[in-house]
Amino acid sequence: MERVCFLLKVKPKRLEEYKRRHEAVWPEMRALRETGWRNYSLFLNADGLLVGYSETDDFEAALRDMSARDVNERWQREMGSFFESLDGRRPDEGLHRLEEVFHLS
Amino acid sequence: MERVCFLLKVKPKRLEEYKRRHEAVWPEMRALRETGWRNYSLFLNADGLLVGYSETDDFEAALRDMSARDVNERWQREMGSFFESLDGRRPDEGLHRLEEVFHLS
Repeated sequence: MERVCFLLKVKPKRLEEYKRRHEAVWPEMRALRETGWRNYSLFLNADGLLVGYSETDDFEAALRDMSARDVNERWQREMGSFFESLDGRRPDEGLHRLEEVFHLS
Repeated sequence: MERVCFLLKVKPKRLEEYKRRHEAVWPEMRALRETGWRNYSLFLNADGLLVGYSETDDFEAALRDMSARDVNERWQREMGSFFESLDGRRPDEGLHRLEEVFHLS
């Protein structure tokens, strides 16, 4: 099992809207679970730094399977404008993964 | 149950040493589990940003219980010099907690 932690950067002006959107994520986005994303949380800092944490058997496969879903295509397109530094990529293509340096179960 | 995500900043010059120290955390630091820290991971970015993730029934209580242990006092004292911006606080007093904005179990 992989524990995954990644960063994205939300535009400071759009923080409140980003939070509101995530209080009401589309039910179809539960496809995340079918594609192997488990125990998935997003945490937001006041400066816009967004931290994602998830557990999965194979993160690259989970990312790829999700990216093939129509609902993800639509969600990522709507979310794209909330982020900085994506250089034209979708958010799920621009996430920056961190190295795990310690774990205690 | 609370899911906790916090940030600290490791001095870039000390990243490698920080990683080595966390490959060999003192066995007595398993006291973390007794005090309620579960599924605890640390993730490190190349610029020194450190992300902590843990699950606990009551984070303030877990932090307080751990801070009362001798082993934690010693560990925090040794770790203190690895971090930026602590202003004299121990690392476990200077961690910056983020807001959870989304969760999918």
